[in-house]
Order: sequence, then C-alpha cells, then structure tokens
Amino acid sequence: MAATLRIALAGLGTVGAGVLRLLEENGDLIAARAGRAIEVVAVSARDRSKDRGVDLSAYDWEDDMTAFAAREDVDVVVELVGGSDGPALALARKALAGGKGVVTANKAMIAHHGLELARLAEQSDAPLRYEAAVSGGIPVVKGLGEGAAANRIERIYGILNGTCNYVLSAMESAGADFAEVLSDAQALGYAEADPTFDIEGVDAGHKLAILASLAFGTQLDFDAVETTGITRIRAADIAQGKALGYVIRLIGLADVSDDGHLFQRVAPYLVPVSHPLAGVTGPTNAVVAEGNFSGRLLFEGAGAGDGPTASAVVADLIDIARGSRAAPFSLPVAGLKAAEPADPGHRRNRAYLRFVVADRPGVLAEITAAMRDAGVSIESMMQHGQPDDTGEPVLVAMVTHDGPESGVASALALLEGSESLVEEPLVMRLLG
Amino acid sequence: MAATLRIALAGLGTVGAGVLRLLEENGDLIAARAGRAIEVVAVSARDRSKDRGVDLSAYDWEDDMTAFAAREDVDVVVELVGGSDGPALALARKALAGGKGVVTANKAMIAHHGLELARLAEQSDAPLRYEAAVSGGIPVVKGLGEGAAANRIERIYGILNGTCNYVLSAMESAGADFAEVLSDAQALGYAEADPTFDIEGVDAGHKLAILASLAFGTQLDFDAVETTGITRIRAADIAQGKALGYVIRLIGLADVSDDGHLFQRVAPYLVPVSHPLAGVTGPTNAVVAEGNFSGRLLFEGAGAGDGPTASAVVADLIDIARGSRAAPFSLPVAGLKAAEPADPGHRRNRAYLRFVVADRPGVLAEITAAMRDAGVSIESMMQHGQPDDTGEPVLVAMVTHDGPESGVASALALLEGSESLVEEPLVMRLLG
Repeated sequence: MAATLRIALAGLGTVGAGVLRLLEENGDLIAARAGRAIEVVAVSARDRSKDRGVDLSAYDWEDDMTAFAAREDVDVVVELVGGSDGPALALARKALAGGKGVVTANKAMIAHHGLELARLAEQSDAPLRYEAAVSGGIPVVKGLGEGAAANRIERIYGILNGTCNYVLSAMESAGADFAEVLSDAQALGYAEADPTFDIEGVDAGHKLAILASLAFGTQLDFDAVETTGITRIRAADIAQGKALGYVIRLIGLADVSDDGHLFQRVAPYLVPVSHPLAGVTGPTNAVVAEGNFSGRLLFEGAGAGDGPTASAVVADLIDIARGSRAAPFSLPVAGLKAAEPADPGHRRNRAYLRFVVADRPGVLAEITAAMRDAGVSIESMMQHGQPDDTGEPVLVAMVTHDGPESGVASALALLEGSESLVEEPLVMRLLG
Repeated sequence: MAATLRIALAGLGTVGAGVLRLLEENGDLIAARAGRAIEVVAVSARDRSKDRGVDLSAYDWEDDMTAFAAREDVDVVVELVGGSDGPALALARKALAGGKGVVTANKAMIAHHGLELARLAEQSDAPLRYEAAVSGGIPVVKGLGEGAAANRIERIYGILNGTCNYVLSAMESAGADFAEVLSDAQALGYAEADPTFDIEGVDAGHKLAILASLAFGTQLDFDAVETTGITRIRAADIAQGKALGYVIRLIGLADVSDDGHLFQRVAPYLVPVSHPLAGVTGPTNAVVAEGNFSGRLLFEGAGAGDGPTASAVVADLIDIARGSRAAPFSLPVAGLKAAEPADPGHRRNRAYLRFVVADRPGVLAEITAAMRDAGVSIESMMQHGQPDDTGEPVLVAMVTHDGPESGVASALALLEGSESLVEEPLVMRLLG
C-alpha cells in the first residue's frame, strides 16, 4: 500500500466535524478503497476550546490555517471555512501554489474564483476538488465531469437549494405563505438565521455557475447568473399552480445557444406534476443533465448536512489518493471558452403572471389590453374576487401561450406605474 | 498532449456503431476532456459486409477479434459482443492477461466472471471498466465506486430493467394484461423477440449482482440472486395496487446483514406512489443507494439504447485515458469478502398476496384460516366477485401486516394442493 495521504483540515463547523467522524468511522473501508490510508495531521478553526463532539487531541492545532500551506507533512488541504474571499481564498491560493491539493465545500469561492484556482492547480500539477460545493452528498460534479464526459451537454437544470425546496414544499403541504413557513424552517434548522443567500437564489446561483462551467466547458461566470428568489411567492400562487397541474420549485437552469451564448437563471418555475423534479420535496437537491448521447440523466440526494457533505469531501480525498488526474472543470483551463451571456428576451416559454389588483371595474381590461398590445397571447386566466365587494385587492393570475420572454417584459412595461396594480406583478416560467 | 489512446472495438451492433458515431461526433471534446485523442484502430464483428450506417474504412478489420489481444498498436479493447462466456470472455481474458485495458457493456460476463477478470486486471495492472453494463448511460458504477466510496452502503435497490419497466408502466396506463403489452413492446423495439432474460428478471439480476459487489465490497455472486419476473402480473393486480396507493415495479434489491449475509432479490414490488421510483416510467432505469453518511442517493436515466450505452463506454475510455486507477470493484480483489447468501425467511415486510380462486362458499375461510395458522396478520382484503354467479374463478387480494417472509411462505405451504386455488398464488412485497 502506498504512503498515507496526509490532510490538514481548516474549519471545524458541522461539516468539518463530520469529515473527522467519517474518516474515523469508515477509516478501514476508506483506506481499502483509496489504496492508502487517509490521515488528518493538522486542524485549524477560530476557537480551539469549543466542544465539537469530536476528539481533536490526535491532530496538530494551527491558529493560522494558512500555515498549512507551508507544512511539509501535508499533502492536501481541506478547506471548510467558507466565504468567497478572505482566509479561505488565501489558503486555497497558497496551498495550490505550493503544490498541495485542495478539497473544498466552498461554493462561493469556487463560483467566484474557480477559474483562477484551477489555473493555479494546473500550474502546480496539484489536484483541486469541490464535489461538496455542489449539492452536498450527490456526486454530480463527478457525474458531469467524468460520467457524462463524452457528451455535449445541451442543458442542465435542477433543484439546487435545499432551504428553498423545503420552504416551497412546506408551503405546498400547509397552504401557508412564505414568511410563516420560513420561521418554521429556521426553527427546524433548515434555514439560517440570515437566510438571504438561500431564499434570494444566490446559493443556487453559485452552484449553477459551477455546473454550467463543468457541463458546457465555459469559463465560470457567476456574475451573469440571473437570480430571482422565492420571497414573493404566496400560498395563492401555489394553489393556482396546483389547479393547473404544476408545483413551484426554485430551479437553476443553464444552456448554451448554438452561437455560444450562455444562459444561466435561478428562479421559481412551475414544474409539471409528472416531471421528476416535481416529486422532489423537502431539503433534497436534484440535478438533470441532458447529454447529446446519454439523454436525460438525473442525480438526486441530500443537498446539505454534515454527513452528505462529508461524504463528498472524503470521496474527493479518495480520488486524490487514487491518483485521479481529471481537470477541476473537466477540461484544461485553456480549453474553457469565455461565453457571452445570452439575451433572455429571445427565449420562448409559457409564463405564469400574477397581479395583485385593485378590486374595481376596468382592471382586467387594462391588463389584457397591455398583453394584446405586447403581442402576448393568454392561454388561461383566473380571478378570484372577494365574496363581497370589500374593496380589498384581489389576485389575478394568467398563463400565457408559448412566446418570447421579451413579449411578457413589454406587457409589464406597459403596465408599469398603473394605479390598478397594488404590487409589482410576479412572473414565473413554466418548465418545458 | 499525451499519446493517443488506441482502441480495438469488438462487436458492431447498435451499441458498437453508436460508440463509433460518438467518438466521431464528439471527438474534439472527448480528446480535450481525456487529455489525449481516443482513436479506434481496429474493429471486428461477425459480418463484414453488413451496412451499419457508419463508415468502417478507416479501421483495420479483424475476422477473429481475439487477434486484438496480440496487436501492439492497441491499448484498450472494447468488448460489445455480449454473452457471458464464449468469444467475449475469451477476448477479455486474453486482453487483460496481455496487459491491455478492457471496457465492456457485457453485464452477463461481468456478473458471472467479473471477479476472475478483476483479478487478471490487477495482476497485469490493466484497467477493467464496465459502466455500460449497468443501466446504460447512468454513471452509477462510478457513482457507487467513486462518488459514494467513503460510505458503508447499507442498501441498494432500483429499477434495473427498462423492458420490464416499460411493460409495467404500459400495463398501468392501458389497464392491460402482461401478454398484450409485451407484444406491443416487441413491435416498438422495447422488448426482444425472445424477451426471457428481461421479463424473468435475469438481466436485472446481472446488474444487481454487479451493484451489490461494488456497494458492499462483497464478491460477485450472481447465482445467489433470487429472481422473479413480471409475467404473472395481471391488470387486476395493478388496479388493486393503485387502490392501495402503490404502483408495481420490478425492483432489484440488495443489502448485507450485520452478520455479513448478502441478500439479493429481483422481484416485482409494490412501490408507494410517493416514492421517487414510482414516478419512473417507460424504459428508464433508476438506482438508489443508501450510504451511512451520504444518505439516500438516486441515479436515473436511460437504461439502454445505443446513445446512452455508448456514452458510458466512452466515459470509461476517457477515465482510462486520464489514467484513472480505481479498482474494477472499487476495492482490490483480495479485499472483496465472500458473503454467504442471506435467508430471506427472516426478512420482515408487508406483502401483497393474490389468489385466483373457485367462486364457491368456504374459499375465503380456507385462505384466512391458513393465514391465521401460519401467524400471518391480514391488514386488508379485497374480493371482487363476478356480478352474477357465473362459476368463473375470482380474484382475492390481500395485504398483510409487517411480518417475516417465512410466515407467508408457511401460509402458502398450507394452501398447497388446495382445490380452491385455480392457480399458484402471486406474492409481491411492499417496498418499505
């Protein structure tokens, strides 16, 4: 058996502690599969004295985790500190530049700096791995970059944020509005105290940017990801969707047009109940990749949590121990194309539009006239007025026929500033 | 870029032609991802003159494919001939013994001789890969052997045969009996002229034996796979299942008990409609693996077909070109444990029992007495008699409470030879 793979672990939150527990519990199996022992030699975190439920006495402690990069007894640095920049990035840069491998669960860092880090890794001939950064324990980075490597991937899409999916499926089963369910989710640990990154689609956007680069061989471009969160969805939208045969899911979706433009969007979509993603409830993630030979592949599992994330981190370590040499983004950095962002206006789809309107004559005429003037064809419309004329605002929902997104945008522009509209219209596309 | 990886391809059926087409269509991408060109230098098949829709003029032709093993200009032999023994096995043995890599889509050969071939590969330090042998284009061999490698896998199960799943979902939507749907499936190319291997569960058994070895680190033991096919399922069973909230799927399921006994079964199961496998319709495959850290992982996609299978074959070639050194069954051969088959009698589950009985007094009493005497507790029972007393046999279906399989077996033993039963009772377990 070859020499031990020696690890330094930065960050001892739930995932870091999970990695230590996994290496201990399944150590024999991991060594047998890896062909060599995988041993943690040093750890670092902010607070040495905190009780994490794991015994740290066997490991060297470093107050400054960047010291890992200089240690000769370390082969691979596992970065579980988080944050797109700051100490995590400094450590990753230093470790790779010094020829050490880096394994990370840090989606923000990879989404923002993955290209630079991949270049560093290439220059040093050091491995850079980030399976745990995308959808926790699901081996989707491996699935795309290796399993589907023979394909031109035509489209990827999926449920990339467990918090949002938990909230949406809880709204679905409870018939409750967003805010109500969010506080339950926070109490249960499915949403953070500050849930902004999750509920506004930023976290899913990080993952989508990474998957897009892997799938299409394009340079990472997180800034071009269009993100819309789930905060404006109401119980009434979910009920309308259901009546039409759809559930609402926060979907990350990316494709590349024939002329090489990259489209990346995170937004709530209406998903047909017969679609595999419609059955994905709770904090689960699922990714679909459509390859030109493989057809539709689906990967599903726990999108977060200490166990699943640790499973992905250690899978990367086993790969490194086995000597795997796949490039971080499946292609050499020089082979990753810079892709212009696509103009979504040309995209065709059906859309769900929901208006909150003043309950008075003429409002429907105003909305439908704007649709007509923008060339948007309405397939169905639902208005549930108040039982009596209470003067309360009412909801009007409609579904358009298939058409360019620019048409819907024009119609909404025509309605901008209208006194009939009590709040900004909500637009969700139907997943086709 | 490193030297070209040189391939000899044995077998030019739809999959072989698909591999040639894929290497041609996506050749640039494949070379970029592999880090070197992958080039077919020689091909072999039974009939040289047959039109396969691909131009073979660029490749050397060998009438005897075992000649590949001796060619110095070949690095990897791709075996797409099929058959557990015979020429395919002779070629694989010879190629591996001579230090050449082998990539195969041949589940029968791997299920029967995988251990021997892995040993040969290990002795020669040559790669042996078979992603295409299990569930076509789904990277599940990679997902288990690499993606989930850090886990003790506690259970695997899935839909492993596209023909059966097509037939069952067609029966479901058409309300038709097995025989009727089978001939449609044959006409549409979803079932072979001789469908025995598919509909009797043998093909799924091959895949299950392979997955079990990969997942549990046990030696392949196809002979111990218990197989029951789908031929006896009637439209009435599907209707009964539906009324109870279940669909019927042919499931391959394996686990290892705490004392190391290996259980492997292919049989129709009642799957709750809320389970992800219930939504898998048509010729799709899906595999679930439950890891002790990853939790439940699901891999889904096309289980067969030239494109998906070629995608898996070429993914293996890319891995080999990249220098991947994972062991064929994730562990070194010496690390694969010989596992005794488990006694299914101890397994506990709920069961669906369906009887075809003579329409006369006392039959129900006879059946329920047998259940009582065997200690089997009945949860629900449905009998739909003829509208009039026609004397035609009638169906009686029941679902038992959770209990050991030995109880149901004893009850059926008590009923054996009963003149009340017009045909052998059908037993299907409920997937828990």
